[in-house]
Amino acid sequence: MSKTEPRTLAGFMELLPNEQILFNQIKETIEETYQKFGFLPLDTPIIELSEVLLAKAGGETEKQIYRFTKGDTDLSLRFDLTVPLSKYVAKNYGNLSFPFRRYQIGKVYRGEKTQKGRFREFYQCDIDIIGDGELDIINDAELPSIIYTIFKELGFNNFTICLNNRKILNGLFDSLGEKDIAIDILRIIDKIDKIGKDAVKKELLNLNIKETDIEKIMNFISIEGTSDEKIEQLKNLGIENETYKKGVEELEEVIKYIRLFGVPEDNFKADLTIARGLDYYTGTVYETFLNDYRELGSVCSGGRYENLAEYYTDKKLPGVGISIGLTRLFYKLNELNLIKADKKSIAQVLIIPMIENLEKPIILATDLRKFGIKTEIYLNNKKLKAKFKYADKLEIPYVIIIGEDEINTNTVNIRNMKTGEEKKVAFELNKIIEEIGD
Amino acid sequence: MSKTEPRTLAGFMELLPNEQILFNQIKETIEETYQKFGFLPLDTPIIELSEVLLAKAGGETEKQIYRFTKGDTDLSLRFDLTVPLSKYVAKNYGNLSFPFRRYQIGKVYRGEKTQKGRFREFYQCDIDIIGDGELDIINDAELPSIIYTIFKELGFNNFTICLNNRKILNGLFDSLGEKDIAIDILRIIDKIDKIGKDAVKKELLNLNIKETDIEKIMNFISIEGTSDEKIEQLKNLGIENETYKKGVEELEEVIKYIRLFGVPEDNFKADLTIARGLDYYTGTVYETFLNDYRELGSVCSGGRYENLAEYYTDKKLPGVGISIGLTRLFYKLNELNLIKADKKSIAQVLIIPMIENLEKPIILATDLRKFGIKTEIYLNNKKLKAKFKYADKLEIPYVIIIGEDEINTNTVNIRNMKTGEEKKVAFELNKIIEEIGD
Repeated sequence: MSKTEPRTLAGFMELLPNEQILFNQIKETIEETYQKFGFLPLDTPIIELSEVLLAKAGGETEKQIYRFTKGDTDLSLRFDLTVPLSKYVAKNYGNLSFPFRRYQIGKVYRGEKTQKGRFREFYQCDIDIIGDGELDIINDAELPSIIYTIFKELGFNNFTICLNNRKILNGLFDSLGEKDIAIDILRIIDKIDKIGKDAVKKELLNLNIKETDIEKIMNFISIEGTSDEKIEQLKNLGIENETYKKGVEELEEVIKYIRLFGVPEDNFKADLTIARGLDYYTGTVYETFLNDYRELGSVCSGGRYENLAEYYTDKKLPGVGISIGLTRLFYKLNELNLIKADKKSIAQVLIIPMIENLEKPIILATDLRKFGIKTEIYLNNKKLKAKFKYADKLEIPYVIIIGEDEINTNTVNIRNMKTGEEKKVAFELNKIIEEIGD
Repeated sequence: MSKTEPRTLAGFMELLPNEQILFNQIKETIEETYQKFGFLPLDTPIIELSEVLLAKAGGETEKQIYRFTKGDTDLSLRFDLTVPLSKYVAKNYGNLSFPFRRYQIGKVYRGEKTQKGRFREFYQCDIDIIGDGELDIINDAELPSIIYTIFKELGFNNFTICLNNRKILNGLFDSLGEKDIAIDILRIIDKIDKIGKDAVKKELLNLNIKETDIEKIMNFISIEGTSDEKIEQLKNLGIENETYKKGVEELEEVIKYIRLFGVPEDNFKADLTIARGLDYYTGTVYETFLNDYRELGSVCSGGRYENLAEYYTDKKLPGVGISIGLTRLFYKLNELNLIKADKKSIAQVLIIPMIENLEKPIILATDLRKFGIKTEIYLNNKKLKAKFKYADKLEIPYVIIIGEDEINTNTVNIRNMKTGEEKKVAFELNKIIEEIGD
């Protein structure tokens, strides 16, 4: 029979088992943390009506979107988890309790140019808090404490959650009379980390902004010091603009509460250059950096928006959210060998029977599982050496060998696969668990 | 602004949060059980090259498949988890340890006619054990013990795992000289539960099978008694066919080991009518029924196959696997109110601050989370009544109220939302945990 070459699409991550275990551990850490803060799970379809999914774009297909017809129906694959959330909240408004706190971890699709470290199918891990009509600013301070908890759990210490408030920037541009091109200015400022100050200046000049105003903007984004010092300087810039003042006040409040939420000073800071390009955010914005690996870019971003679902409903639904692009994050961390895994195998123990009668080995496996110990029993007729090799490749920490000798003396032989040490232990469940327990 | 109606595609499940929590609990039970037996996780793309995914079908599009082009590439959404597994094993053969034991839980897509309880996007929860060249028959006995563990964990007692062996049926038809139409006969027999004996007879007649042979077939599938009695009768039917004999021997062996794996007699039986229609299976086949709800059909099915990946590789890769169609199962169980949930909310406790200074409530929330207690803090300025209503709707079991009174007396007020009982407790972490711990 002629064979089809078994291959996977470029830009689609498909891991070997030992990498998949690491990936899942990170995913679980994120999910458990989201749950620990009382967020509700949500799972929406990967396929939506194009008309619904692309409501914002007026139904126009963007190039990156996977869009196709099935029968007469115009369908698209979701490209983020925010639009499906908007649809969901608008659709189920009457059945939800507000503030609606949901997490969603799922795959999204973007037909980007394939290149190393860029994926067309990738996991997003999102949380959002949606208010009905209003949402207290203190919610903006809870999210950084969740980011903090996640990256600590993942074994990182040297990371910084950078905070800003879009009202400060918008108010500043307003006061300079540049309100109309505020979004363009923001997009440029947003690139300062990538392209540097001089390039930012040059791009601002291209927008026909007065040189004196550019100086003001550059002075503003150059404000240095601690978060508190920055806020003092913002207050003393003499900018008489209500939006600006409101922004400074909100940022000050968020920082006050972040401290209450237990995020250490080392792990957050006000960063006035953060804008999050899109015109979507209207208040607090976040980016998170691993300081030893700035080249990764922001590993967790988000912010406050005025109105989640304006394309679907008249209800005003302000919210605040963050997102972790897990697939790319995993790819980068794995490449840098930065994943601190507490376990590298699924099974804690492999039972290797070296006898014909499998009764005792099987019963032991069943008993160990009842005590929550993940247990595999090697059920195929191979040489002992091949069985050890199997345990070794799967990085299973313990092997229990049961042969004639062990049966006759009512013992088991436990081998610690890491140290190579072997130990005869009485065939008693509690003694065995004592030896192999975590 | 004109609004787009927020709607979800027919045949795509999208749950409210309290249902989603139940769904996820079942999914977790299945995943944890798969892990407890030492299966490795796998996650493959939802999109594959049509040429690869449809290798078996010779690249022909089946009507149900979601197939489309992106740029010049012919793509399809996976319609099961078995074909992606075949591709994966063939592709990564050199990097896997055999027997390769993997689980995969993920969404698959079939554009079926939409009707109540039928889904176009649904979760499959699969495990398979793949051998390299050979795979011991005892593996066929381990899978029923996994099915047993899952449905026990889900709170069911009255269910039966039905077993058969395709070699018995194939050998029988061979001995009758009907080998060529064995698959057609199997398809008919497979329907006996739905259409009854008379209709089966009639359909067999339509195949131009001799009436005497039909009698033999009907006698065969009418064999009654315990599993052991059935095997005895099979042995004594006087059918001199090697395949048949091998099948009876395998079935006997599988049943012997199922007992060793601790599956009680009440929860499994030999059922000679089970064929699993497809021509894919070659040995043991399984179906699982909730006996009080036979109308659900089989809730977990699978079997032994000769060669997993013949379309991709010359390597002989025999395997055995089972699959649970979770979305449909959840839909049915939920409809019948059969889901025994141990918890109906994510958060174990909601902290309600009734004071301006949120320091103490926030610190308490952080401390509780450190002890693994899922804790939400109500951060929005609402009347107490609205806050209670929120806890009530989310079915959060405990509420901790912290007002002026509590601050002054260094206490908290804990309300059990189920009983309505309130209790003043000293503001000490261990005392509070004692009150609200699981």
